[in-house]
Amino acid sequence: MKTELCQRFGIEYPIFVFTPSEKVAAAVTRAGGLGMLGCVRFNQADDLERVLQWMDENTDGKPYGVDIVMPAKVPTEGTAVDIDKLIPKTHREFVDKTLADLGVPPLPDDEAKSEGVLGWLHSVARSHVEVALKHPIKLIANALGTPPKDVIDQVHEAGVPVAALAGSAKHALRHRDIGVDIVIAQGHEAGGHTGEIASMVLVPEVVDALDGTAAVLAAGGIGTGRQVAAALALGAQGVWMGSAFLTAAEYDLGVRGSSGVSVIQEAMLAATSSDTVRRKIYTGKPARLLKSRWTEAWDAEGAPEPLPMPLQNILVSEAHQRMNEAKDPTAVAMPVGQIVGRMNEIRPVADIMAELVSGFDEATRRLDGMRG
Amino acid sequence: MKTELCQRFGIEYPIFVFTPSEKVAAAVTRAGGLGMLGCVRFNQADDLERVLQWMDENTDGKPYGVDIVMPAKVPTEGTAVDIDKLIPKTHREFVDKTLADLGVPPLPDDEAKSEGVLGWLHSVARSHVEVALKHPIKLIANALGTPPKDVIDQVHEAGVPVAALAGSAKHALRHRDIGVDIVIAQGHEAGGHTGEIASMVLVPEVVDALDGTAAVLAAGGIGTGRQVAAALALGAQGVWMGSAFLTAAEYDLGVRGSSGVSVIQEAMLAATSSDTVRRKIYTGKPARLLKSRWTEAWDAEGAPEPLPMPLQNILVSEAHQRMNEAKDPTAVAMPVGQIVGRMNEIRPVADIMAELVSGFDEATRRLDGMRG
Repeated sequence: MKTELCQRFGIEYPIFVFTPSEKVAAAVTRAGGLGMLGCVRFNQADDLERVLQWMDENTDGKPYGVDIVMPAKVPTEGTAVDIDKLIPKTHREFVDKTLADLGVPPLPDDEAKSEGVLGWLHSVARSHVEVALKHPIKLIANALGTPPKDVIDQVHEAGVPVAALAGSAKHALRHRDIGVDIVIAQGHEAGGHTGEIASMVLVPEVVDALDGTAAVLAAGGIGTGRQVAAALALGAQGVWMGSAFLTAAEYDLGVRGSSGVSVIQEAMLAATSSDTVRRKIYTGKPARLLKSRWTEAWDAEGAPEPLPMPLQNILVSEAHQRMNEAKDPTAVAMPVGQIVGRMNEIRPVADIMAELVSGFDEATRRLDGMRG
Repeated sequence: MKTELCQRFGIEYPIFVFTPSEKVAAAVTRAGGLGMLGCVRFNQADDLERVLQWMDENTDGKPYGVDIVMPAKVPTEGTAVDIDKLIPKTHREFVDKTLADLGVPPLPDDEAKSEGVLGWLHSVARSHVEVALKHPIKLIANALGTPPKDVIDQVHEAGVPVAALAGSAKHALRHRDIGVDIVIAQGHEAGGHTGEIASMVLVPEVVDALDGTAAVLAAGGIGTGRQVAAALALGAQGVWMGSAFLTAAEYDLGVRGSSGVSVIQEAMLAATSSDTVRRKIYTGKPARLLKSRWTEAWDAEGAPEPLPMPLQNILVSEAHQRMNEAKDPTAVAMPVGQIVGRMNEIRPVADIMAELVSGFDEATRRLDGMRG
C-alpha cells in the first residue's frame, strides 16, 4: 500500500492515526504508519512537553505528528474561572439532576475537579504548537476548521506541513487557499466533530475540488483494510483513522474496571454501528458520540439546548470525570465513529495495522478479478 | 466489471438502477445494467400493465425488474377517501398556509387533485406484484422493509428472485431469514427512505453478517465509477443506484420549464451535496430529500410533527402537485441522495453507464499501482 505520501513522510503505509494516547501514537509510528498525538487534553504545556519527550524516545527515529484543536471562531478566551461565570444556572441544575438520576456518585472530597478541556482556546492551542515545534514532528493537524494564517506560517517556517479536517469541498478549498498542505475529508460517519456529508460522497468531491493542489486523506468509517481500499478507490492518497485505535491494547487512558479494560472501552466493545449519535452536548458543536444513558438524557423532553463552544464542555467536564470514575459503561461520554460496531476486541496496534494492509491487498486483488 | 451477479442475471455489469421512469429503466437495461422500474407511482394496476408492455417492447429481450414498496407494517388500509378522514385539520391548515407563503398557486379548477401515492398500501403493492409476474421480469425488489412471506413465496414460485433494502445488519438478516435473495445495503447518504449508518460502515457489515447466504448490492452515495469501485472493495457484489439517473436525458417525468428540463431536474442540477435533508415530511418515515423552501418550512418553529405513513403523503400529495406545476425550483419536494452534488448536467443513460465502467477500471488500476 504505497502512495506519494509514503515517500513524502518517510512512512511505510499512508495510514495516519489520531489518538490521545502517546502509547498508541508511538506504536502506530513503529508499525509503519504516522502516529498523530492529540494535544487537546493537555491544559498545561509542560505536560505535553513531557509526553513528546517520551514520544521521541519511543518511536525509533520514525516520523510522528501532533493534532491540535483550533476552531476558526472562538467566542470566548480566558481561564476556566472567567469562562465559568458564563454558564447558566439552569444548565448546571440539569447536569446535577441527570447525574443523580443516572446514579453517578459525586467525586471524593479530596479529588480535584476537572477544569474541562481548554485545548481549543487559541491561547492553549498556540502553546501546543510552540511546544511541538521543539520536537522532530513531521505534521501538525488542526481538528476543527481552518487554522489561523500566522500559525500556518509559523509551522511552515519550521519546515513542517499542516493538515486540517474538512466536512465539505467548500471547507477544503478554504483550507487550501490559506496554505494548508493536506486536507482530511471527514465524513458524517466519523467520531467527534463531523459534518453531514458521508465519506462515499465527500471524499471524491474534495479530491476533485482540490484537483491535486493539496493531498487528501479520507476519514470516517475506516477500520478495516477493505475500507482503506474503498477510501483510496475514491481518490484519497491516504487514510486518517481515530476510533478504531481506541480499543488498541496499548491505549491506557481512562479508569479501568476489574477486567483490565477501561470502562469506556467496555462500552465501545459492546456497541453496534447503530449506537452512536451526533450531538452538540460534548463541546457545543455537532460531534458523534457513543450512545449512552447520558446522551439519552440530553435527548429527553425538557433537556436544555447545549451551550456554544467552549462553554458546553466546561459545563459537562466534571460530569465526564464523575461518569468515568463511576465505572458504569451505560453512562459515558465518549466521541467515537460508526465503526465502533466493528471494534469488538482489544488488539495490539501492530495487529490492527497488519489487518489494514492485508485487507487492502485482498480487496484490491478481488477488484482485479472483477475487471474484465 | 464482472461479478457473480452478471452471470446470474444475464447482465453485462452488476449495476442495478431503480427509477420511476420506464424510459430510463429500459435504457439502463439496453446499456448492460438491470433497469428496475419503480411501481409506487401506479395507483391503478392497468397503468402499470401498459408501461410493462412498453418495457417488453423496448428492452431488446434483455433483463429488467420492478421495485415495489411494501412496508413491513402499515397502520391503515383502504381507499384514499377513507384514509383522508384521519388527517388532522391543523396539519391541513399548515400545508395551505405554507403554500400561500411560498407563492404556490392553487390547481386550475378543471384539474383533478392527486389522491397521493397509494402504492405502499399492501393491497396496491400486491396488485403490482400480480401484474409484474405476467411479464418476463428478472427481479422484484421491495424498497421498504421485509416483504410478507406469502409475497416472497408467490414471486419465488414464478422463478423470480426477491431483493430488499436494509439499513442495518439486523434488517439484512431478517430479510435473509424470510427468504430474500439479494440484500440492498442502503447507507445514510442515499435518497429516499434511509437509515443512520453510512455506506462505508454499513456495506461491509451487511456483507459479513450475511456471510455469503445472500448477495449484497451497495446503495447510497454512488454516482461515479470510483464509487462503484469503492462499493465493490467494501465487499458488495454489485451496486444499486437511483438518484444519479434522475438527471438522465431519457427521464421524462415532471413538469418542464422553457429550458426543456423539468423544474425538479433544474433544482437538482443546482444543488450541492450539502443541499439534502433527512425528514419524515414526504411519507411519515425518514427519507432524504432535496433541501428547498418547502423542507425549510417544515423545519421552522411552529411546524407540526409529520403524520405516520401513509397519512403524511396523502396530506402533502396535492401540495407536491401544486409545487410541481408552479415551476419554481426553490419550492419542490423530491427524494434524492447526497450524490445530487455531482448531478450537474443532463446526460444520456448510456453516457452515465459508460463513465461508471471506465471510472471503475481507472480506479482499480490506480489501486493496483498502490499495491506494493
